[in-house]
Amino acid sequence: MPENLIARLHGELSRATHIDPHSHIEPRAAAATGLADILGYHYFTELAHSAGVPRERIEGEGVAADARLDAVVAGLERFSNTVQHSWLLRIARDLYGFEDQTVTPDNWRTLDASIRQRSGEPGWADSVLEKSHIEAVFLTNDFDDPLEGFDTSRYVPCLRVDELVFHTGKPGVIDRLAATAGIDVGSAGQLTEALGRVAARFRDRGAKAAAISLPPGFRPQDVDQAAFAGSVEAVLREGLAADASHREIVSQGIFWHVARCCREQQLPFDLMIGVRRGVYPGGVFQGQDLLDGRLSLADYAELFNAFPDVIFPVSVLSHPLNHELVSFAWIFPNVLPFGHWWYANTPAVIERDLEQRLEAVPRTKLLGYYSDMYKLEFGYPKFAMYREVLARVLAKRFVVERGWSEEAAVDLGLDLLVRNPQRVFYGESD
Amino acid sequence: MPENLIARLHGELSRATHIDPHSHIEPRAAAATGLADILGYHYFTELAHSAGVPRERIEGEGVAADARLDAVVAGLERFSNTVQHSWLLRIARDLYGFEDQTVTPDNWRTLDASIRQRSGEPGWADSVLEKSHIEAVFLTNDFDDPLEGFDTSRYVPCLRVDELVFHTGKPGVIDRLAATAGIDVGSAGQLTEALGRVAARFRDRGAKAAAISLPPGFRPQDVDQAAFAGSVEAVLREGLAADASHREIVSQGIFWHVARCCREQQLPFDLMIGVRRGVYPGGVFQGQDLLDGRLSLADYAELFNAFPDVIFPVSVLSHPLNHELVSFAWIFPNVLPFGHWWYANTPAVIERDLEQRLEAVPRTKLLGYYSDMYKLEFGYPKFAMYREVLARVLAKRFVVERGWSEEAAVDLGLDLLVRNPQRVFYGESD
Amino acid sequence: MPENLIARLHGELSRATHIDPHSHIEPRAAAATGLADILGYHYFTELAHSAGVPRERIEGEGVAADARLDAVVAGLERFSNTVQHSWLLRIARDLYGFEDQTVTPDNWRTLDASIRQRSGEPGWADSVLEKSHIEAVFLTNDFDDPLEGFDTSRYVPCLRVDELVFHTGKPGVIDRLAATAGIDVGSAGQLTEALGRVAARFRDRGAKAAAISLPPGFRPQDVDQAAFAGSVEAVLREGLAADASHREIVSQGIFWHVARCCREQQLPFDLMIGVRRGVYPGGVFQGQDLLDGRLSLADYAELFNAFPDVIFPVSVLSHPLNHELVSFAWIFPNVLPFGHWWYANTPAVIERDLEQRLEAVPRTKLLGYYSDMYKLEFGYPKFAMYREVLARVLAKRFVVERGWSEEAAVDLGLDLLVRNPQRVFYGESD
Repeated sequence: MPENLIARLHGELSRATHIDPHSHIEPRAAAATGLADILGYHYFTELAHSAGVPRERIEGEGVAADARLDAVVAGLERFSNTVQHSWLLRIARDLYGFEDQTVTPDNWRTLDASIRQRSGEPGWADSVLEKSHIEAVFLTNDFDDPLEGFDTSRYVPCLRVDELVFHTGKPGVIDRLAATAGIDVGSAGQLTEALGRVAARFRDRGAKAAAISLPPGFRPQDVDQAAFAGSVEAVLREGLAADASHREIVSQGIFWHVARCCREQQLPFDLMIGVRRGVYPGGVFQGQDLLDGRLSLADYAELFNAFPDVIFPVSVLSHPLNHELVSFAWIFPNVLPFGHWWYANTPAVIERDLEQRLEAVPRTKLLGYYSDMYKLEFGYPKFAMYREVLARVLAKRFVVERGWSEEAAVDLGLDLLVRNPQRVFYGESD
Repeated sequence: MPENLIARLHGELSRATHIDPHSHIEPRAAAATGLADILGYHYFTELAHSAGVPRERIEGEGVAADARLDAVVAGLERFSNTVQHSWLLRIARDLYGFEDQTVTPDNWRTLDASIRQRSGEPGWADSVLEKSHIEAVFLTNDFDDPLEGFDTSRYVPCLRVDELVFHTGKPGVIDRLAATAGIDVGSAGQLTEALGRVAARFRDRGAKAAAISLPPGFRPQDVDQAAFAGSVEAVLREGLAADASHREIVSQGIFWHVARCCREQQLPFDLMIGVRRGVYPGGVFQGQDLLDGRLSLADYAELFNAFPDVIFPVSVLSHPLNHELVSFAWIFPNVLPFGHWWYANTPAVIERDLEQRLEAVPRTKLLGYYSDMYKLEFGYPKFAMYREVLARVLAKRFVVERGWSEEAAVDLGLDLLVRNPQRVFYGESD
Repeated sequence: MPENLIARLHGELSRATHIDPHSHIEPRAAAATGLADILGYHYFTELAHSAGVPRERIEGEGVAADARLDAVVAGLERFSNTVQHSWLLRIARDLYGFEDQTVTPDNWRTLDASIRQRSGEPGWADSVLEKSHIEAVFLTNDFDDPLEGFDTSRYVPCLRVDELVFHTGKPGVIDRLAATAGIDVGSAGQLTEALGRVAARFRDRGAKAAAISLPPGFRPQDVDQAAFAGSVEAVLREGLAADASHREIVSQGIFWHVARCCREQQLPFDLMIGVRRGVYPGGVFQGQDLLDGRLSLADYAELFNAFPDVIFPVSVLSHPLNHELVSFAWIFPNVLPFGHWWYANTPAVIERDLEQRLEAVPRTKLLGYYSDMYKLEFGYPKFAMYREVLARVLAKRFVVERGWSEEAAVDLGLDLLVRNPQRVFYGESD
């Protein structure tokens, strides 16, 4: 397959700007202020740790900032093959003018200095976004985030509900819910009322989605209201000590009610399915979770059926589940394949997943990509990686194999990258 | 990989004619009589529905035929990327001389008129088959189908047993069984006797296989005869109201007995494994079923072991299960990978599945492809798609990577496409 | 992708010599002494059987040696497409000067004669190893193997513990354990003491690893010591008649204690996960086992967490589980993807698995390949196959797509093929 065909498609795709419909950006400190903000990303700390750098050196208390950087940098050459390592080099070179071949114990201070300098320049965050072709970044906000102090049209609020659904009994959660909703939360009725108020406030503040990550064993269902009321009572009374069956019913009931709120507020509900938390407690910060493929999207059929008016952008963490995701999106109008998440966000996996999606799911339903980033800089290499894979798949599967024109192939790519995220999260506008 | 190598292999493969060992053709109305017969195929209605066309507009009662077509056609551009859309264009262009670039609200009547005209010409059905390189088409017949009124050498009967196995207690099923078998069915013994008579009649009428589709949770086993007798009694007495455990035992017992009948009648028993029915009750006709990958072919080991003389052509609906299918066919003489089914019948999935099969399963055991079609026209684009993927895999994996001659690669392809289906379903003849 | 780029990388990779970290070689009879030793490999007998050659003809008692060979040879053309068939031809041509295009009923005696002749030449085994680029071959030794009579630096002992873990109650096993350990084994304490002695003896005799194959349902855990003591007592008393729950606890307890022994002796513990034994009892010798993908590496998290100082080279038998393997190796420092095992040891499967591993797991942790061979000759075609796939993936994913230099790509390949196995099994030496 001619590489210059791929390059042409990639060039065309790279002329577009688009939204980034899922990230963990802190809008008041969006860009990195030094190399520590880049190398502190869990992809680097966890790979360094996996490659043998002790956790104590990476994030131990009392370890100096420079020593932490030394530790991660020392590990870099051990994972120089990974795509994550290539992200680092693209950031260093293209955003910060780094000219060495790789980041080493001897030269990282130069890179650090460049980052510190440029990040102090006015408009730097906007400049990074522009280089990344990103117009707006979706956030991941706690339910009681005040959503103030930033431009919500550029940094778009998104209601993250993991804490409400899975940690209802944790000390403080209900109190915070009551405080942010402005009502007492002492019963199931008040709990759902409070959830509704939270969702309404998010919508009022410009939120464009609700989102949750889900463990493999979760089974969404519309629980009996009396059982829900009893279980809420138990959890309110006993917190984390409440019986597991009560906690499960509360999770199911709150999850279901969030879907109702999404329907009322016309918010897409992002489902990120299949993460198992805390599998490796000895891992570094944010490097302790893994996946478990023993689930089926059939577990979610009751939900998809119950809320035909709610759009569910769905990410699966286990690569083999992509075929189910394709099949469910092929049939259910409200199921939309959503980006390439975490352990499935590497080029060869994206390529396989993408070619399956492109040949069997309506083009208007494919939500191409999101960065999942914590610092703005990562939007740049991640979207670049995605565009390259997308260009390759379009070239191979559509231009070469199906005889499409290059223009038609690019146009299809723009549906994924630009138009569909825009329409799905902002409403019919094109 | 040179595209002209692929084209040469494809050209050679396209010179062959072959059987189509699984379809849903109605032999007395085999070809389409208008565009409604083409666009009424569930692939189009379900994709249009998935892309946002309301079910009411597609198949609502009282909606005029033209309005239904308008609805599906309006959805076409939303799934112009899918391989199913390419099937439509191939049929329109190559079989019906349609010359526009795509089917639109403005031009579908022209296509409809062409179909209506040609389908009225004498010998049109045979002409479609000829263009599709198909010599004989296997059907999917109810157990009480009279199997009369058509040429059973061209339209080959196949005994479909889903209804007997999974809906024994449904009103009318047992009565129909008794009627077609010509005996009373009031006990387990009479039931199995009747099954035997059905199988014998099918064999006498030229049937070449029995077939069944199976849900992911089904566990084939040789149930205890006394338990079977008791459960049959319960189901005969109570129908669908019989306890689930009774219904499960009846399903298992009948399934097992069908395998015995296949042994007696020397019929291959097609197993199509992994469909979950009615997952999306809001879907269009035939667009409500999905898959669930939580099974293993190890669940079928008892069956494969118990019937060494029965050939089991096996299709799996979940793409990740292809590796198990390859492995089981590599070991069990009576397990044969069978085509590429439904949600796994798209080019990129076929390509992955096929390359695995071709490198590890004896070439004499690979049953290449079947159309699964409801109208004859679909054999044309589906087999064309399959030949293209087959040519690509043979070119890449055998000619380029393993240094095979083009002749040898084509010969391997003809095993899959022509010889193996012929030998397996018609007996040793080459 | 230019084939000459692949050829150049392959040429460079082929200049290296390396260890073979897993095989079933019998060091006192390492090379084949005739064609029967080659065609007796289960890959050939099981594929011939799967393709229709009766087991009786392949391995029936009283069947003459020549007739057995005739039977397998008669089946060869039916699986001439398989990669296993290509192994045979490579051995025949490159090691034994066979010049015909394929092995047939008419020419196999010529090949047999060549093997018989050359295998009698002094230094033949060493010559085969040299042609295979293999410096040392790891064995699979029973726990009471005397480990004497061979050069343990060339034929490296490896403690296989399946029998101890899963067949503790089988007549003779405990007696053999007591004999080899030199102590009575009449209690849990004595059992673990004996296991420790076995491991120490292996380490003293140059063993470089312990290894086990594991069924899909196995759940490793640190069982309660009192329960373990009770269950050991039951199994010592009742053998295979002991209750299944006792046998399971004994398996779990011994497995866990083997991990402790690996920690004490600083031995990597190879886990080969997902085989279901005896699925096809009608199969030929060693051709009766299959796989079942219904497991998750999350089942092993407790083990990986409990033994951070033990290196676990992990093979999975089910291709879809490779994504979990990649993800777990990306996070857990002590989990290392290990080769391509059995049903996953075919080129297209290796290619997919390898490209995922190479883009997300630290390069220092990838243990490229092992032969799993029973006779030395098979190291030649198997490693050749692996190098070809490795060269292709490096060329495509690194040189073409990521712009790496050829030198850098080859260097990455040598990590997998040479350096990592050396360092992991022999300790830090580079």
